[in-house]
Amino acid sequence: MHAHRRKNKKHKPSSPAGPPGTLSAVPDAPKPILRAIAYGPGECIDEETTDLDSLHTYLERWPVTWLNIDGLGDTEVIRRLGEIFGLHPLTLEDVLHLHERPKVEEYGENLFLVLRMLEPGGVSQTEQVSMFLGDRFVLTFQEHPGDCFDELRRRIREGRGRVRNAGADYLAYCILDSVVDGYFPYLDVASDLVEDLETEVLEKPTPETVSKIHQLKRDLLSVRRVMSPTREAISVLLRDAPEQLSPTTLVYLRDAYDHAVQLLELVETYRELAGGLLDVYLSSVSNRMNEIMKVLTVIATIFIPLGFFAGLYGMNFDTEKSPWNMPELGWYWGYPAFLIFLVVVVLVQLLFFWRKGWLRKP
Amino acid sequence: MHAHRRKNKKHKPSSPAGPPGTLSAVPDAPKPILRAIAYGPGECIDEETTDLDSLHTYLERWPVTWLNIDGLGDTEVIRRLGEIFGLHPLTLEDVLHLHERPKVEEYGENLFLVLRMLEPGGVSQTEQVSMFLGDRFVLTFQEHPGDCFDELRRRIREGRGRVRNAGADYLAYCILDSVVDGYFPYLDVASDLVEDLETEVLEKPTPETVSKIHQLKRDLLSVRRVMSPTREAISVLLRDAPEQLSPTTLVYLRDAYDHAVQLLELVETYRELAGGLLDVYLSSVSNRMNEIMKVLTVIATIFIPLGFFAGLYGMNFDTEKSPWNMPELGWYWGYPAFLIFLVVVVLVQLLFFWRKGWLRKP
Amino acid sequence: MHAHRRKNKKHKPSSPAGPPGTLSAVPDAPKPILRAIAYGPGECIDEETTDLDSLHTYLERWPVTWLNIDGLGDTEVIRRLGEIFGLHPLTLEDVLHLHERPKVEEYGENLFLVLRMLEPGGVSQTEQVSMFLGDRFVLTFQEHPGDCFDELRRRIREGRGRVRNAGADYLAYCILDSVVDGYFPYLDVASDLVEDLETEVLEKPTPETVSKIHQLKRDLLSVRRVMSPTREAISVLLRDAPEQLSPTTLVYLRDAYDHAVQLLELVETYRELAGGLLDVYLSSVSNRMNEIMKVLTVIATIFIPLGFFAGLYGMNFDTEKSPWNMPELGWYWGYPAFLIFLVVVVLVQLLFFWRKGWLRKP
Amino acid sequence: MHAHRRKNKKHKPSSPAGPPGTLSAVPDAPKPILRAIAYGPGECIDEETTDLDSLHTYLERWPVTWLNIDGLGDTEVIRRLGEIFGLHPLTLEDVLHLHERPKVEEYGENLFLVLRMLEPGGVSQTEQVSMFLGDRFVLTFQEHPGDCFDELRRRIREGRGRVRNAGADYLAYCILDSVVDGYFPYLDVASDLVEDLETEVLEKPTPETVSKIHQLKRDLLSVRRVMSPTREAISVLLRDAPEQLSPTTLVYLRDAYDHAVQLLELVETYRELAGGLLDVYLSSVSNRMNEIMKVLTVIATIFIPLGFFAGLYGMNFDTEKSPWNMPELGWYWGYPAFLIFLVVVVLVQLLFFWRKGWLRKP
Amino acid sequence: MHAHRRKNKKHKPSSPAGPPGTLSAVPDAPKPILRAIAYGPGECIDEETTDLDSLHTYLERWPVTWLNIDGLGDTEVIRRLGEIFGLHPLTLEDVLHLHERPKVEEYGENLFLVLRMLEPGGVSQTEQVSMFLGDRFVLTFQEHPGDCFDELRRRIREGRGRVRNAGADYLAYCILDSVVDGYFPYLDVASDLVEDLETEVLEKPTPETVSKIHQLKRDLLSVRRVMSPTREAISVLLRDAPEQLSPTTLVYLRDAYDHAVQLLELVETYRELAGGLLDVYLSSVSNRMNEIMKVLTVIATIFIPLGFFAGLYGMNFDTEKSPWNMPELGWYWGYPAFLIFLVVVVLVQLLFFWRKGWLRKP
Repeated sequence: MHAHRRKNKKHKPSSPAGPPGTLSAVPDAPKPILRAIAYGPGECIDEETTDLDSLHTYLERWPVTWLNIDGLGDTEVIRRLGEIFGLHPLTLEDVLHLHERPKVEEYGENLFLVLRMLEPGGVSQTEQVSMFLGDRFVLTFQEHPGDCFDELRRRIREGRGRVRNAGADYLAYCILDSVVDGYFPYLDVASDLVEDLETEVLEKPTPETVSKIHQLKRDLLSVRRVMSPTREAISVLLRDAPEQLSPTTLVYLRDAYDHAVQLLELVETYRELAGGLLDVYLSSVSNRMNEIMKVLTVIATIFIPLGFFAGLYGMNFDTEKSPWNMPELGWYWGYPAFLIFLVVVVLVQLLFFWRKGWLRKP
Repeated sequence: MHAHRRKNKKHKPSSPAGPPGTLSAVPDAPKPILRAIAYGPGECIDEETTDLDSLHTYLERWPVTWLNIDGLGDTEVIRRLGEIFGLHPLTLEDVLHLHERPKVEEYGENLFLVLRMLEPGGVSQTEQVSMFLGDRFVLTFQEHPGDCFDELRRRIREGRGRVRNAGADYLAYCILDSVVDGYFPYLDVASDLVEDLETEVLEKPTPETVSKIHQLKRDLLSVRRVMSPTREAISVLLRDAPEQLSPTTLVYLRDAYDHAVQLLELVETYRELAGGLLDVYLSSVSNRMNEIMKVLTVIATIFIPLGFFAGLYGMNFDTEKSPWNMPELGWYWGYPAFLIFLVVVVLVQLLFFWRKGWLRKP
Repeated sequence: MHAHRRKNKKHKPSSPAGPPGTLSAVPDAPKPILRAIAYGPGECIDEETTDLDSLHTYLERWPVTWLNIDGLGDTEVIRRLGEIFGLHPLTLEDVLHLHERPKVEEYGENLFLVLRMLEPGGVSQTEQVSMFLGDRFVLTFQEHPGDCFDELRRRIREGRGRVRNAGADYLAYCILDSVVDGYFPYLDVASDLVEDLETEVLEKPTPETVSKIHQLKRDLLSVRRVMSPTREAISVLLRDAPEQLSPTTLVYLRDAYDHAVQLLELVETYRELAGGLLDVYLSSVSNRMNEIMKVLTVIATIFIPLGFFAGLYGMNFDTEKSPWNMPELGWYWGYPAFLIFLVVVVLVQLLFFWRKGWLRKP
Repeated sequence: MHAHRRKNKKHKPSSPAGPPGTLSAVPDAPKPILRAIAYGPGECIDEETTDLDSLHTYLERWPVTWLNIDGLGDTEVIRRLGEIFGLHPLTLEDVLHLHERPKVEEYGENLFLVLRMLEPGGVSQTEQVSMFLGDRFVLTFQEHPGDCFDELRRRIREGRGRVRNAGADYLAYCILDSVVDGYFPYLDVASDLVEDLETEVLEKPTPETVSKIHQLKRDLLSVRRVMSPTREAISVLLRDAPEQLSPTTLVYLRDAYDHAVQLLELVETYRELAGGLLDVYLSSVSNRMNEIMKVLTVIATIFIPLGFFAGLYGMNFDTEKSPWNMPELGWYWGYPAFLIFLVVVVLVQLLFFWRKGWLRKP
Repeated sequence: MHAHRRKNKKHKPSSPAGPPGTLSAVPDAPKPILRAIAYGPGECIDEETTDLDSLHTYLERWPVTWLNIDGLGDTEVIRRLGEIFGLHPLTLEDVLHLHERPKVEEYGENLFLVLRMLEPGGVSQTEQVSMFLGDRFVLTFQEHPGDCFDELRRRIREGRGRVRNAGADYLAYCILDSVVDGYFPYLDVASDLVEDLETEVLEKPTPETVSKIHQLKRDLLSVRRVMSPTREAISVLLRDAPEQLSPTTLVYLRDAYDHAVQLLELVETYRELAGGLLDVYLSSVSNRMNEIMKVLTVIATIFIPLGFFAGLYGMNFDTEKSPWNMPELGWYWGYPAFLIFLVVVVLVQLLFFWRKGWLRKP
């Protein structure tokens, strides 16, 4: 896990590996697995394929083809796909740079989007999804298998919703929407965490609480760093309305934009709440310190003077040498009087503490 | 109450339940109750209805019809209403998504608004109000019965104000205005709470004070999260001036915009004040700690040395073995001299503390 | 005073009292007093009046008429004035809503401004001034008698400056300028207060200091809440240059705008300084705590060990039973040697504290 | 010095002294001293003058005339200068208002700039410089003698740089540039101060450190309050490119703009660093408190139990009355065994503290 | 190192040294070394040169010439280069001002860029790189030898990538890209540092931790101060699309812009994290203080009362003078009963502490 997080931070490892204009493989990347989902209003196929040469038959036969590539370990395959689908060389480089910010760019006839998908391992871990939208196809590149599109695939297979009757642009919207909506479950978790931390901070704060608050803030920062450029990218699409997107799809896209905005607002809200929790924690720690100090002060203030008085009559001044040397020691009521004196001292002090409010429950 | 707040946080529960383009019921939602208020300058009816087929007669007979639907538990009813009033399918989906941000959208001949109404239970709880404004009608969908429109209904029934003489757009403005103004009572409460907390923090802060401040900040964040997109939505209406709104209504809408801005300014002001209160609290806790430490220090610093001196003369060095062994014990004025010595020590220390200012009232 | 501040917070009390489109009286408002100042280059009259019917004679006879109404307790008078001067009904409602934000609006031939004037009682208390600027007249409505226009009235009466030679728009500028400049004396007070608080925090901080800092921040927030929309309103006037304002007056208005900006900059500066003072206060409290702890630690660390050693030789082990039982007690130089030992212990500890720097002045 | 700072805060003292449209003298201002520097490519004169009537001869004879007026104590002189050079009355009022914000305004043929020049006494003290740029002249008004233009005057006299070959607009740029660059030395001082304070805070923080940090923040706020509108003013010049400025001078002005931006960035950087230092200071104070508490705890925790054990054997239970009454006192190895017991107790405690890390250097 | 940092802060040392319009040498700057890399699609030369007169032959023979000048110690050479390549005098001044902000300016046929390159010594140290882009040449001026262009030079020599086939504008992009990407390694270091500091703060915070956090924040501020105007400059290029840049190069430039934005986002993220760490540190210090106080309180609260009781029976009241004088001392079970009493006292106190949770692990 730790090694993972580290790796996640190396944001631009491919840049020194080669000059602009050449494709260089992602180190340790798995071999690509191609999965083609092609459909029209009436029917739909979903199959893995390895034969690059026959890909054009999908395009010819089906109204919409979605080719998903899991794993970026073979630059040759990616170069060939670029040729087949007419992708700009610069975009292929971006596909292989694993730390791109989410963005959208128009290259000739295709629309190129970079997205980042939440991985099950946590929010500090996001997987890059590069998407090309062409006339009759959608191409998606993922770093490795496992994604949040299973529900979408089911909808296509079962023909639910309007996806089977719509074009490739609607499919691209569905993919984008799935990526954005994939962050909501994390924010539900964050919402619960904020509430738990509030209870914890106010009721039984421990040093681990601070650590958890800090981790939460860090995770929320990660989500913001992904979602903020995603929102910008969608907003660029809405503003420029590229010809690849039909007006109907733009209406739906407005919905995805709203979700992205809502996500960012939630992130900001939770960040402010988490920031406030640290202040509450500090005041809570100070309060407990106050309570500890009160106990110490009450006990010490009561018994240190008592100890002094007891010590006083433990002195060995020679009572026989002088009548002034501690005559109290020889009095008949000496000891009981002394004990009563101590009780009076204690009562006075307790009264003092009571009026200060130090004996009441905090 | 707690379960309620939790539920309120699940912001997009309907999204996984179905693909875009299909209506799915809100779980556990009450069955819809339809109430029609129809009026013209001269007269007005206000009645519950269940007969969807006869709704068109309202539209034909009355200049303005306000159909309010309480409860979203029957998708069939909502689908039928969509057909009767010509509502876009996407907006019907939004009506059933209970965690939409306030927004305004134009769909064909209708204007669609999502608002969030403060519920009596507190600000962390807001009820979604979806409103459609058509040529001669206003449709409002609420999650469940109970709202802030009673005063408005009374005005319509009694013919007060200009509502009976104006069109459906003025009614929509009145509904929007009621929703916005419904937040002012909470801000009055917040204003009083800020003042009470100021007094509490400065005079007798307790750990609960921090908890209350945190809750206040959280509630204000909730209000801001609702009111900020509401202001945006009104500002969009003012800027685009859709044809559904007459110029006169736009003049009134400017008033609602002013109120939304004022609400947000108050929220920001109270948030800054609440944030400042935490700092004041911390300094107040530190002050009390200082006071406690002063008491401990004064007592310990006075009596610990006294205790030592008493202990000194409690030692058992054999005075008979040597004239240097504690000859003071045998002196005639030994004990009184010792007591005087102790008094001098105490007085010197008190003088020291006095000059430090530790004996004065803080 | 307290009751006053409370009242000031009820920001929109008139809204539930009536529907838009009807005038409702301000509760407990004093009866209106009308004072007319009418002037031309050559002469000027200044008189109270009660005869609403003869007001039009002012407009006919004098180039500029300034009618000031103190007190909003009679809606009938206000309605009549609206008829005489051709004021829009919505603006009359705003005149009676006592918690409007400063704003400017153009209604037909008149310009309508809402301003808020500092009251002598303090910045948390501002009085609403509603102003109408027409072709040959200025109307001002105030909540109650007492304002900051006396200097301006003197200038008109004595014919100083260019006011007598200019039109009604210049008079409106002068009124606006008086309201804005009326905040400078408070900011002088705030400036002195910031300096006093700086001295107080650094030299002799008390818990009251925090209270004063908080109050200052609160007051500055109040000023900002008034002045920020005022600046916006003037900026709208400068940008739109409505026809009621002559180009010369716009040049002067730029000056008022500069003053409003300067006020807001000063408010921000003082707020930042006040915010910094709380941090300084906290560090100052921590420093004093450190000093207290040092005294306690030095005294306790010196005398607690000494007390132990004295206690050691106060034990009653029977020296006669065994030569190993505290033979020191019977030595010839036992007691002096013990005292010398204590002195050495003390000196070593003092050296330790000296090197830690705890004995030097902080 | 203190009185000075106070005076500096009275931001608009002249406003109540007179109505707009009249010139009123600055109280206690020195009498004006006029110094004319007139030059062309070939030659240059630099002389004081008192004869206002012959000023026009400069304008006729020399391509560029720079008339500098030190001291604003004579409104008559300023009024006369206004007539001679055709200055707008409003600008003359601004010249005499000593607390104007930096700004630029175009009045007919002249360009009017208000600048604020750093004075040697410190950044809380700035001197207003009002500048008029006409076709062949530059007029500068200063509050009192002493400025940052000596280097510029030397350049004109000695004919260095391109100033002698350029027009009045280039001279105005040079004056503006000198004023802006006059703030760099202060920022060098601030930079060194930040570094010194960093060392001080981390190595030997004293209460004075906080005071110095606060003063630094205050001074940086002052610089920002001057430089921010200065940058705006230059940006207005660059954007509007008034005809008084030649394209070449605008190119140079872009340089002055860059410097103003750089100054503001430095101010922000130092403010952030200074703000961070307060946090470091607080943590440093807390650390020292921790160290003090550790010493107290170690000593008290070791010696208070020892003191108890010694006290135990100082009790006077009668060993003769019962064999159970402190028989240890009569044992042969009683005292040595007790001492060994104490040593063991101490060692166990030291081990505990060692494992807590309280005995190691912090 | 320290002296270095100091020097770095003197931001505008050359400004007072001379008037605008004259070139003045950078003090202590090394003599310039000229290195020419000239290439076309087919071949490439890379050589040092000293003969300024033959530079024009490069321009004639090669499609692209990159002349790099290391060291600014000879103004004559720079003046001559300005003549040969037709550079504007103002830009030459900027080349010699070592503290320019990154910017881009168009002067006639050339594009002038100021960049700041990270130096190996750390981020507080950046080297100014001035670049001129002409029709067939790129000129770069550096303060001293050593840069981040070695990889680029290798690519040119070996003909990798598309640089050999592209024009001078693509070379300029490559240089700009190298400078921007040169900051990524530092941000990797900062990322690791943030993680290390998180661990350190939560597990074993020391005073040095604060110092490291502060240094990190300071370094990130430095990077932001360089990268923020760099991003602005690239954005100006993208917006204005000057004719020196071909459309293809602009596409690549968009990539450099993305990188600059990404850098700034990372800087902001790390700054927020570092800021949060200080809060965590403070709470961690408070926690340890709490732990220390608990130990002290437990020990003192247990043993101070015990000490008092022991002292009580160490008193010397004369048991023979009165039956009321400490008869316990003569009881048969006196001492054992006393010991049992002490054990009960201790157990009660331990129970109290246990219920307070002070004995459990924090």
